[in-house]
Parts: sequence; structure tokens; C-alpha cells
Amino acid sequence: MAKKPLILVTNDDGITAPGIRALIEVMNTIGEVVVIAPDSPQSGMGHAITLDSTLHIENVKIDNGKQIEYSCSGTPADCVKIGISEILDRRPDLCVSGINHGSNSSVNVIYSGTMSAAIEAGIEGIPSIGFSLLDFNWNADFEATKRHVKKITENVLKNGLEKGVVLNVNFPKLPEEEIKGVKVCRQAKANWNEKFDKRISPQGKEYYWLTGKFVNLDEGEDTDEWALENGYVSVVPVQFDLTAYNSIKQLNNWNFND
Amino acid sequence: MAKKPLILVTNDDGITAPGIRALIEVMNTIGEVVVIAPDSPQSGMGHAITLDSTLHIENVKIDNGKQIEYSCSGTPADCVKIGISEILDRRPDLCVSGINHGSNSSVNVIYSGTMSAAIEAGIEGIPSIGFSLLDFNWNADFEATKRHVKKITENVLKNGLEKGVVLNVNFPKLPEEEIKGVKVCRQAKANWNEKFDKRISPQGKEYYWLTGKFVNLDEGEDTDEWALENGYVSVVPVQFDLTAYNSIKQLNNWNFND
Repeated sequence: MAKKPLILVTNDDGITAPGIRALIEVMNTIGEVVVIAPDSPQSGMGHAITLDSTLHIENVKIDNGKQIEYSCSGTPADCVKIGISEILDRRPDLCVSGINHGSNSSVNVIYSGTMSAAIEAGIEGIPSIGFSLLDFNWNADFEATKRHVKKITENVLKNGLEKGVVLNVNFPKLPEEEIKGVKVCRQAKANWNEKFDKRISPQGKEYYWLTGKFVNLDEGEDTDEWALENGYVSVVPVQFDLTAYNSIKQLNNWNFND
Repeated sequence: MAKKPLILVTNDDGITAPGIRALIEVMNTIGEVVVIAPDSPQSGMGHAITLDSTLHIENVKIDNGKQIEYSCSGTPADCVKIGISEILDRRPDLCVSGINHGSNSSVNVIYSGTMSAAIEAGIEGIPSIGFSLLDFNWNADFEATKRHVKKITENVLKNGLEKGVVLNVNFPKLPEEEIKGVKVCRQAKANWNEKFDKRISPQGKEYYWLTGKFVNLDEGEDTDEWALENGYVSVVPVQFDLTAYNSIKQLNNWNFND
């Protein structure tokens, strides 16, 4: 019998989040699972890493699954770095991150701690996938995602991913029977229309809360936003070579000297 | 006389860093300058945004330049968001970030607070540039960068940038007369070989410091790493559409159902 794949599981909502519990449950049916996840929520952390403070790791037991688990005081990217470098005794065959409570589709990939962990593993050459559900609630229902999480993961283990590419998978907030299937997509062009909620503290000092409205600027039917709005699971291949190759020619015509 | 361009200046080393002081000095010769920068260092913050706590803004005066300045309790991306949405009375014509104390070339773009601010402005449709010098020292000498910073900025104001593209500019640590010129490059393939320095606290608890060695895996002579090693200023056009278009066809051949 072939050796079971070693799967590193992490997230950005913290190690006790229901989303990572659902992900661990599915991964336990596929391979040998080691969880290294933040000890507290890290949403909106982008690709932060901990340079100016110390990192703490603790062996923990959160549920009765057969996985081994560690909580880490750092960011999702820290969890992947320290997992590969210090905790795992061999190189993982796969890294999965999530399931995030809330969307990481479209431009949200840029702010996403969930995806930063997947990208970090990708930089290390490890096939990896970030999973997110379009439901911010702590008590979001992850049941409907499990079959597709398993299928997508098995595809990655079987077929591999191209070098420099990781997957960004988002699930619509729908019961399983209403999910129409999986669509491979491009990232929709979008931005956030920020609104800062200005308040006054009891001490008379102004402060702000960041709020905002997501604006889809893309009418394409090949985007992740379109897929999600129309009842599909979106799969976007994501790269971390950020070079805008199409712009190199334009810039070469500029005059940088004299 | 045409109206002077409005330039938003930020960074990730904090508003008092010598790097941003040098950048402000150059920008004051080009346009009307408003600085909104973190009140403390934010290196390695990636594209973090502040969702779970409040933001504070303070009008400050750091030097005798003619710019208007605000310090902000948030991340570089927060500074850009709150600047555009709350502080500036019109849309800026340009956003510049830096000059970072330390490299943001190659894969470092992913972890960079400096570049996250530039990308945030790019998402808002504002032409933008991140500048970095390959010298981590607080007392790094930014004199040699100023002429090129000005020239590159003037090119962006004159020619514009393609939609969805910002510039990642890095300077070698060299005196001005030894800089050979500017090269438009692609992002070198590289990673970090992490080493976690494991220590024991006075209380007997294990903890780690993240350290590591940058490993250039790319032998191309068209990369930013090559340019910098060979005495050039590197200019990489950076995009925030992360879709790996070349992988879409491969993934469409996968079997996601049954």
C-alpha cells in the first residue's frame, strides 16, 4: 500500500474555528494530517510574517480526530514556515488552508490570510489550496462544502499543480443540492468602496472603524464572482510571480536617464 | 500654469524613517504632497488591513518641508485607504511608498508593506510606485536614490501606467556614480530558506525567532535580482490580478464531479 500523503492544515480564523475543523475532518479521510494554525483569529492579515517578535508553538488537542495539532502565536504565513522548517519530520505532500469564514474571491485574495498561507506553501514548492465559504458567521454550515473539498484535493494530489501556482477555492453559501458544480475561473476585477465610520471616544478623541462595500467592476462570465453568484464553486489558479509581463515593453520605451 | 499633481506618500517603516523623509523631499520638488504613514514600523505586514480594531489619525509635523503630514495607527494599506477616503480633499494623481529600508525585490514583494500600500492605491486606480533601497540600516544613505526616484516618478506622471499595474523599484546599495542606470525587469524566482532560532525563556518556555537566507533560484539576466547585483536600479511592473491564466486550461481537464 502506498504511503498516505502528509497534509499540512492551517487557516486564518484560528485553530478552534469550525471551518478548520471541517477541513481537518475531510483531510483525515485522505492522508496523515498535521495542523499548525494561529492561536487567535488573523483575518485581514494579508501575507504578514512575524519579524519583530517571538513565536510560540503549543501541542494541543481540540477534538477527537486522529490529526496532530499545534497552535502558533504567529500569522498564517508563519504557521506554514515554522511547520515546514521545525515541526514536520518530512516535507508535506500538500498544504490546505481554511475553510475560511467569508469570501476570498476576486481582489480579496490580496488581503487574505487564508490565501497567504497557501501561497507561502506554494513558494516552498508544495502543492496547496485555500478554501473559503461565502459566510462570515462563526456558525456557518460547512457540510455542503465537504464533498467538493475532497474532490478538489484529490485532483491536486493526483494531477499536481504547475510550478508557481496554488488554488483559490470559494464556495457559495448554498445547501449542497443547490451547488451546480465547480468552475475554473479568473479573478474578477473589483475593489472595495471604503467607508470609515468616524466616532468619538469617551475621552473626546476621534477614531475610525474601517467598513466598506465590495464593488464588482467585472461583467465577464468567466470570473469567480460570476461563478459564485450563479451557484458554482469557483477555482482560481493563483500565481505569486506578480510581474505584469505585458507592461515591460511599454516601460522599456520610457526615458529613465538624462 | 497647470495645477501641481497631488501626491500621497506613505511607507511601512513608520513616518519618522529617513527613507520616507528622502522620498518626501523629492516629491516636494514635483507636486503637492500629503503624507499619511504608520506611526510605528510595519515591516513584514504584507497586505494586512485593520478590521478588528480602531484607527487613529494625527496631524503631525516632523520636519520643515512644505508637505502636510498625518500619522496613522494602522498598516500601510490602511493609510492609503483612509487617506483616499477620509483625508484628501481630491483624488491623488499619484501614490508613492517608501523609500523602504531593505529590499522588496523578487518574492519579497509578497511580504512587503511598502508594496502593499502601492498595490492598494493601484486597486483604487491611482498610479503608484513602491521604492526600496537594499540597505536595512536605519541610517542608510538615500542620497544616491534621489535623482532616479525623481526621474521614475516623472515618467509615471507623464506616461501613466497600464490599468492594474504598479511599479516595484529597488535600488542597489551603491554610491550614485556607481549606479549604471535603470533596468525594467521581471520578478526573479526565489524563496527564503527559513531557519527558526529556538530559545528558552527565563520561565523555561520554548520560543522561536524567524530568521532565514534569501535564495535566488533564477539564472535569468532579465530579473530584478540580476539587475541589482549588477549595479542597476530594478523596475518591475507588478499586477494584482493573480490569476495564473496559463493554468486554466490544465484545470479544465480535471474531473471535479462524480
